[in-house]
Amino acid sequence: MHEFFMKMALDLAQKGIGRVNPNPLVGAVIVKHGKVIGCGFHEFYGGPHAEVMAINDAIQAGCTDFASTTLYVTLEPCCHFGKTPPCTSLIIKSGIPSVVVGMEDPNPLVSGKGITILKNAGIEVQVGVLEDACRKLNPVFITYITTKKPYVLLKSGMSLDGKIATVTGDSKWITCEESRKDVHRLRSQYMAVMCGIGTVLSDDPELTVRIIEGKNPIRIITDSHLRIPLESNIVRTARNIRTIIATTENSDSKKAEKLTTMGVELIYTKLRDGRVDLQELISILGTMNIDSILLEGGGTLAFSALKAEIVHAVRFYISPILLGGVKAKTVIAGDGFSTLSNAFKIEHIHVDFCGSDIVIQGAICLPA
Amino acid sequence: MHEFFMKMALDLAQKGIGRVNPNPLVGAVIVKHGKVIGCGFHEFYGGPHAEVMAINDAIQAGCTDFASTTLYVTLEPCCHFGKTPPCTSLIIKSGIPSVVVGMEDPNPLVSGKGITILKNAGIEVQVGVLEDACRKLNPVFITYITTKKPYVLLKSGMSLDGKIATVTGDSKWITCEESRKDVHRLRSQYMAVMCGIGTVLSDDPELTVRIIEGKNPIRIITDSHLRIPLESNIVRTARNIRTIIATTENSDSKKAEKLTTMGVELIYTKLRDGRVDLQELISILGTMNIDSILLEGGGTLAFSALKAEIVHAVRFYISPILLGGVKAKTVIAGDGFSTLSNAFKIEHIHVDFCGSDIVIQGAICLPA
Repeated sequence: MHEFFMKMALDLAQKGIGRVNPNPLVGAVIVKHGKVIGCGFHEFYGGPHAEVMAINDAIQAGCTDFASTTLYVTLEPCCHFGKTPPCTSLIIKSGIPSVVVGMEDPNPLVSGKGITILKNAGIEVQVGVLEDACRKLNPVFITYITTKKPYVLLKSGMSLDGKIATVTGDSKWITCEESRKDVHRLRSQYMAVMCGIGTVLSDDPELTVRIIEGKNPIRIITDSHLRIPLESNIVRTARNIRTIIATTENSDSKKAEKLTTMGVELIYTKLRDGRVDLQELISILGTMNIDSILLEGGGTLAFSALKAEIVHAVRFYISPILLGGVKAKTVIAGDGFSTLSNAFKIEHIHVDFCGSDIVIQGAICLPA
Repeated sequence: MHEFFMKMALDLAQKGIGRVNPNPLVGAVIVKHGKVIGCGFHEFYGGPHAEVMAINDAIQAGCTDFASTTLYVTLEPCCHFGKTPPCTSLIIKSGIPSVVVGMEDPNPLVSGKGITILKNAGIEVQVGVLEDACRKLNPVFITYITTKKPYVLLKSGMSLDGKIATVTGDSKWITCEESRKDVHRLRSQYMAVMCGIGTVLSDDPELTVRIIEGKNPIRIITDSHLRIPLESNIVRTARNIRTIIATTENSDSKKAEKLTTMGVELIYTKLRDGRVDLQELISILGTMNIDSILLEGGGTLAFSALKAEIVHAVRFYISPILLGGVKAKTVIAGDGFSTLSNAFKIEHIHVDFCGSDIVIQGAICLPA
């Protein structure tokens, strides 16, 4: 029974997708004698929390007495003043005698405090109902709050045989229009988008949100030698769209100065294998409050990022075509993993269709 | 209503999978006043046809009068003496007044004759109900009878990034045990299995059915220079399992003689790009009554086969792992297609899971 109502709260939580970042998605349901009397979800960043919405919903529907009600909420209620007053206070004040929580607050500084406050107030609290599903609801929030590093989704468009371009470099467009729209949707949901200088030199992308409505992400380019052309689309638009170039001491300081005057922010990392140190870069980006990065190819950066263990999940848009070619660029290139046992494994695989493409998403399972 | 009963006949037809080749799968249903009174399917090679089974089933169930019945059959009833007497005669004799046919017999020498005979006997005949589904039921039969060339399914096991081995050549096993079982099931259903000499040299495969029960396919190796080792598993077992090596005038005649004494059949084709001419080979195999070939990698042969337009469908077992590596072998290699517009497109995509692997199957749509 608990799972039934928690599932309902989970479904409600989903409705906030794309509008609550960097806050978590949360859903809540209030049940009295087996009947739902109020429900709510976190609707937008800075807006009222799901518990508040659910309690207000119940009151509006005529509930005057919260005795014998149970509150189901996907995430531990907050106990601090943030953009809104603490939910624990409201729950206690309302008189709700029983609370079922999907998962503890993942913030190690907070975790469990809200639950303790409720228990100390005499409320019966049960924690961990559909916990896995509640965790999966907020990968970005959980990753960022527990590691202080951004959640990274590696996205690629490829042919069914794993190529991202033909042998002659033809790559526009391997994937269908719906997939490209979906990528723009992702860009608008992630705080930043990242690609390597190779992709900038070959495709001159803008990395903006165009074919749908949505806010532009911060753009991050890894470019150890600052080879980026001043007339590239990225640099040209750096005054209007926040742009970060990650580079190294191997780059030209005059070029750096010029880029800075054109609006580009520069981050310097130490060298690793002659390239930008991605682990250091990710830590720096974390301190800059960047909680999520959509990593957009190519194969060299994709391999480096996997090897540096900064990637949390992959999302591949697979076009039902075959390109062939020993020399065609593949989706994950670089040196490669030498044996099957040290290859990266993907778990929680989800397969879907997007227009005529197949979309495969999954979480990276780090090698043992 | 017609579609409902034809769907039932289609479902019945499926029950013959793996036991009727090279005959087609066929299902039949007899309906009287909206009620199914008899059903049948082609159960095994040489056995009674679906129509016979359905009529006998109805009689056994007590039907003595076929007036106001309708026979639904997925394929046009035969009108010739083969392994069994013509179904058209039995249908006419039974007194069935109405026949609904999924598709005409694809054999251009027969097509429509059965229908004409039924019509001439005063039976009402409707053709083409769920025709697409009826066609899809028998790709091998339809391909072979209309082209006299075998139906070719290209099968590969690969990582999610399109690699069939790591940079060091580690490939055992990329796919899971269930997938390997499924491949053995396919081998037992196809008349022949084909691979290139590259795969023989690197993997020394047996290409037999082992991990499940089933008959071994004929083994076909393309080997333009007869590089196959006499002590390879294929050659060693050629006396017991029919083995064909396709080669060219570039091969050594002494080696050819030796192979023949060891039980190998040799086919010579002209040279194409320094290799076995696959189009010629396929035509020859067709004349040898080989109706279906499971093409098992590697990337070089796969590309050559696609380019030669002998492949009808692909089936990829995709392991949820990432191997990376510019130098890792990919599932379709060779020269590659130069532009996206002349790439091979896959249609009728079907995605499924097999153990922990994703299986993507689809039909090749030849480039315009």
